[in-house]
Parts: sequence; structure tokens; C-alpha cells
Amino acid sequence: MRVKAGVLKDFAVKVMKAVGCDEKRADIVAEVLVEADMRGISSHGVARLKRYVDHIRAGLIDPRAEPVVVFETPVSIVVDGCNGVGQYISNLSMRKTVEKAKNSGICITVVRNSNHYGIAGYYAEMASKEGMIGISLTNTAPLVVPTFSKEALLGTNPIAFAFPMSKGRTLLVDMATSVVPRGKLEVRARLGKTIPEGWAVDETGRVTRDPHRVLLNVREKRGGGLLPLGGEGETFGGHKGYGLGVIVEILTAGLSLGSFSYETYTNAGRISHLFAAVDISLFGDPKEIEEHVHELVKRLKSAEKAEGAERIYIHGEKEYERREESLKVGVEIDEPTVESLRKLADEIGIEVPF
Amino acid sequence: MRVKAGVLKDFAVKVMKAVGCDEKRADIVAEVLVEADMRGISSHGVARLKRYVDHIRAGLIDPRAEPVVVFETPVSIVVDGCNGVGQYISNLSMRKTVEKAKNSGICITVVRNSNHYGIAGYYAEMASKEGMIGISLTNTAPLVVPTFSKEALLGTNPIAFAFPMSKGRTLLVDMATSVVPRGKLEVRARLGKTIPEGWAVDETGRVTRDPHRVLLNVREKRGGGLLPLGGEGETFGGHKGYGLGVIVEILTAGLSLGSFSYETYTNAGRISHLFAAVDISLFGDPKEIEEHVHELVKRLKSAEKAEGAERIYIHGEKEYERREESLKVGVEIDEPTVESLRKLADEIGIEVPF
Repeated sequence: MRVKAGVLKDFAVKVMKAVGCDEKRADIVAEVLVEADMRGISSHGVARLKRYVDHIRAGLIDPRAEPVVVFETPVSIVVDGCNGVGQYISNLSMRKTVEKAKNSGICITVVRNSNHYGIAGYYAEMASKEGMIGISLTNTAPLVVPTFSKEALLGTNPIAFAFPMSKGRTLLVDMATSVVPRGKLEVRARLGKTIPEGWAVDETGRVTRDPHRVLLNVREKRGGGLLPLGGEGETFGGHKGYGLGVIVEILTAGLSLGSFSYETYTNAGRISHLFAAVDISLFGDPKEIEEHVHELVKRLKSAEKAEGAERIYIHGEKEYERREESLKVGVEIDEPTVESLRKLADEIGIEVPF
Repeated sequence: MRVKAGVLKDFAVKVMKAVGCDEKRADIVAEVLVEADMRGISSHGVARLKRYVDHIRAGLIDPRAEPVVVFETPVSIVVDGCNGVGQYISNLSMRKTVEKAKNSGICITVVRNSNHYGIAGYYAEMASKEGMIGISLTNTAPLVVPTFSKEALLGTNPIAFAFPMSKGRTLLVDMATSVVPRGKLEVRARLGKTIPEGWAVDETGRVTRDPHRVLLNVREKRGGGLLPLGGEGETFGGHKGYGLGVIVEILTAGLSLGSFSYETYTNAGRISHLFAAVDISLFGDPKEIEEHVHELVKRLKSAEKAEGAERIYIHGEKEYERREESLKVGVEIDEPTVESLRKLADEIGIEVPF
């Protein structure tokens, strides 16, 4: 089903308000979720509303909490999210980060006691829209096994990097440091399909093709989980994905004295983030640097294609094209999601405008 | 053959001096190469001397060039390496970076017109030894194909991240953003072995198991090359490794207005780097943060092992253990390397003390 972005956003705002968020909190949650759907990242779109509602009801998210700056210097900020709404905390934190970077040229902000914040790229883009390099990292629920282990201790720990390109465009890398995010297993499980060998391991630590088993095991902490980028063992660089996951843990929960992924989602979400903004003029004339990077992008996009390949992408391109399409013809929402949204709306007593 | 680290280093110093380096340049090259061998990273050890000698003779490296700071702010430096010796430029740049970070809390330095700098981790460690987070990135010769392409445009573009741990230890992630570095193909080719499906593609852009073919193709620019971390296509996240490679290109050659990997090794090496140092006290009490990260490391190392696995490592551990062994019983140098060093020594008229 296609739904106009504005209609979808209004609906999401209503849901969040129904469970105790004020206008500004509800608005930013809705904004970040609908951005994901518009870009085709449905795993991080309005389908998440159900989980947010559940988490607020279970007390993991405090819909009224106000984040607090607990420490700062001219180039850094430490925020305690006080278990509030992830998107609200993160939006506020990145705004402060960009503000400080306007004075100091650079700012790194770390956040503890936050919650799921949606797509990492949203916040990185907040900096690139101001002509700066933006970085956004977060840890997550424990889903990923360290190399040679069968215990899911690390999060899918995404890395988002946004670089402002000429003509107002952004180069946006936004990637989980696991082979795939959990959402990809959920989709396969729903369709009754197997997963490729190399996405996940079972409770013995061996590669499995059964997505149901992995999801159940992770939920019940029976062992196994997603593999880090690079896959099983060291042959294809699994230890590198594991390393990237560790870097994200250190830079988020480590620096903020927050909870590591394996300590999250107890009586609160306790998610940690990092946001950074770097003014490009720290290195010379921003225009010149942006044009130089534009040459790189042009060269990569015009690379000789592998046999059978149709097109070479630069990061963010697919998602931005999808976004433009969504703005024109409406946001695609799949039937199971529409169904679950209807059920959710019914439960909390609001109307569904689609 | 086992050679004492000091003996190996003295030999490397002599080689570099024989081709025009002064004492301090020869010394830092030797230091970084022997560090690699001590850690078991023989692809980046004294075996490289031959290539450095060739590059100096071919004019790609100017053994006398002095790097120049072309731009700086309280938190950033831009260095032009003037085609000098990579290790000398990099050591100097990271020292300046750490110095500035001691005042400003953070510093990012980008370098253009440098040369091969050895193991990326060496420079990241220079910051962690001062109690700071150290980051070291570099682009390289073009060896890696973007996802869906068969043209090697990106470098293996390593990322090194060093975090100072309690008791003077360092957590060190030091990883190429390709599935494997070129060295792994060279080893397989030398042994007459095939490579696993998923390391590299041939001139058609399809996965190949023939390391000779890939190395030859890359050398003669016939198409094909190494795959980015995550492998071919998008199924196992190859676009993520491609994204990491792009980030490194932007942060090194992009910000420094240097040459992208596909523009390197023409009449000069033209390699670009980034060095960063971040004072942990920007985020609170460094001791407390270091101890907190120590908890993460302990938890990861004690994770439940997958069936058949013997041990779970944290990054840097293997290499530091090997280093201690090398200090005790000498540095292991394989026979082909010993042979090539003898030949090289003969050629430039110095003695081989082993």
C-alpha cells in the first residue's frame, strides 16, 4: 500500500502521543521513522511503532524524560539520556554537537541511557546538511557473536558517515557492522525462506540456514546469533567486523560510561550513542574539498561494471532515489505492517487514516 | 630463521641509508618494519625493503624530502609529504597530532603526497601510548573493486584504532577494508595454492580461485582485483566494505586534496593518510573510562566458545603475544625473505649479519 508521507507521519505522531509523548517528542520519532520508510528501510520505519509502544508500557522508555548534559568541553559533550525517547535525545544531542562544531571546528558527543534511535544516518545527515562531516554510532541489543564465540554479546552496532557533496547532495554510508541486521532474518522467517550460509550461527556456534532458530535462540538467550561483517571465523575477515563492533562499543558505551550491548534492555533500554560533527574548513577551502570528493564519486560510479552488473552505486544513492519516489507517489508500506499498525491503532484507540 | 630484533633493525637501517636516507629516516623505516615482523605481520615487515629501494631508485620516493605543514588550526593539521619517506612523514605527523591534542583535547591531521607507511597500527599506538585514542588511516595502490565493478579503483585502505587499556596495554584494531590484503594472495601464489571463493574477482568481475591471475591482472590493469570486506555483491555486505573503503578515501585523499588510490604510483607514490588523537579526558575521568572498557574486553574474552573453537581474542592480543615471543627468541623471517634480503644486500653492497 502507498501512503502519503505526511499522512504516515501524522499517524505516527498520534501513536506516540497516545502513549505519553508530548508534541516535540512524538514529532521527531515520527519524522525519523517515516524517513526510513521513504528510503525503503522498512525495518526501521513505522513498523517499529509497536515496539516503542511496548517499551514505553514496559517502562524501558520514559516518554517524558529530559536528557541532561553531564560533562562538556569546547569540543565534547557527555549526555545522560535518562532513559528517554531515543530520537528526541539523539536529535537534541546532534544539534548541540553541530552548534559546538561551528565554534570549535569539531565536536564529539557521547550519550548513555538512551533508547533505540532509528536509522543512524538521520543524525549524521543533520551535520552534513550544515556542510560538516557527520558521524553517528550506536550500540544495540546484543545480537552479534564475537569471532569464535557462540554468545551474542555485541550489538549490530551501525556506523553512519555523512559527507556533504556539491549541489546539496550527501554521500551517506549507513551500515550495521554485522553481515546483516536482524530485520533481514525476520523477513526471511516471515516468508518461510532459509538464509544464506554465513549470516548467522546456531546455539552450537555453527553456521545455520534457519532464521527461525536464530531469532528464537537470541530471544531466549540460548546461544548463537548474527555473524559480524566478514562472516564466520577469520577466512573472510569476520574478525574485522568483530573489530568494528568493538570500536562502536568503546566509542559509545565505553566513553559515556554507559551500558555495553550485552547489558542493555534490562529494566531500561540503556542504549549508548556517539555523534560527531567535523567542519571541513579545518582542512582548507570546503568548496574545493567537496569538489575533489565529487571527482572520486564520479570515478567510482563510472567504473567498469562486472559482467552481469547493471549499475554501480555510491552510498546513499539508492535510498535518496527511493525517497524522491516516495515523495511523488507515496511511501510503500507492506501488508503485514499495515495490518500490525491497524491492530496497534485499535488497541490504543486512534484512527487509521489509510 | 630467527633473527634478533636489534640485528634485523640495524640491517634495515643500513639498507635505507645505502639508498640515500639519513639516520633518522632510516631509523624510523627500520623501526616500523621490524615492529611488523615482530608481530608476525611479515607482509609489512623487512620483506618490503626491496620495494622501498626500488621506489627510491625509480624516483617515487624522495629519500631526502622534508614534509611541510601547509595549513593548521588548533584542532587540525594538513601536511604535504613532498613525496618523502612514508614512515618519516607519518611519524612526524602523528607526533604533531598528539602534541596538539594535548592542548586542544583532539587533533586530526591529514597528509598528502606521502608513501607507503608500513603497518597502520604503529601510528595509532603512538597516541594510545600517550593515553589517547589513536586513529590511523591510509589509502594505497588501487587493488579493490567497488561492489558490482571489475575495476580496481580503491586501495585496501586500512583502518587502525588504538585504545589505551589499563596496565599499559593497548586494544588495537588494524584491518584492511578489503576481505584480505594483497599479501595473502602473494603467499598463496607462492605456495601454488588456490584462494577461497570470495577473496577476489578476475577480469570479467567474477569470483576466481586463481591468485596468480588476480595479481597479474592488477599489475597490468586488465580488470578485477580484491573484493571489499563482505565479499561479492551485497548478499554478505560487500557494499559495506566498499563503503568503508570510500570513507577512508574521503578522509585521507579527499580532505588533504591528495590523490585517490586510483591516481597513486604514477611518477610518485602520492599516498594520503589521516592521523587522529583524542584525549579520553574529553569525556570524563580517563581511569574510570579505561576500567569500564576493560570490563568489555574481559567479557568478550570470556564469551562462550563456538564448538571446536579454542580461544576468543581481543584485537591486538595475538600480535602482542607474538611480539613478546619475538623479543625473547628472535624474529621469525621466512626463507624466501632471507633469500631476497641477501640478494638486495649484495646488490647495494652491504653485509648481511644473519
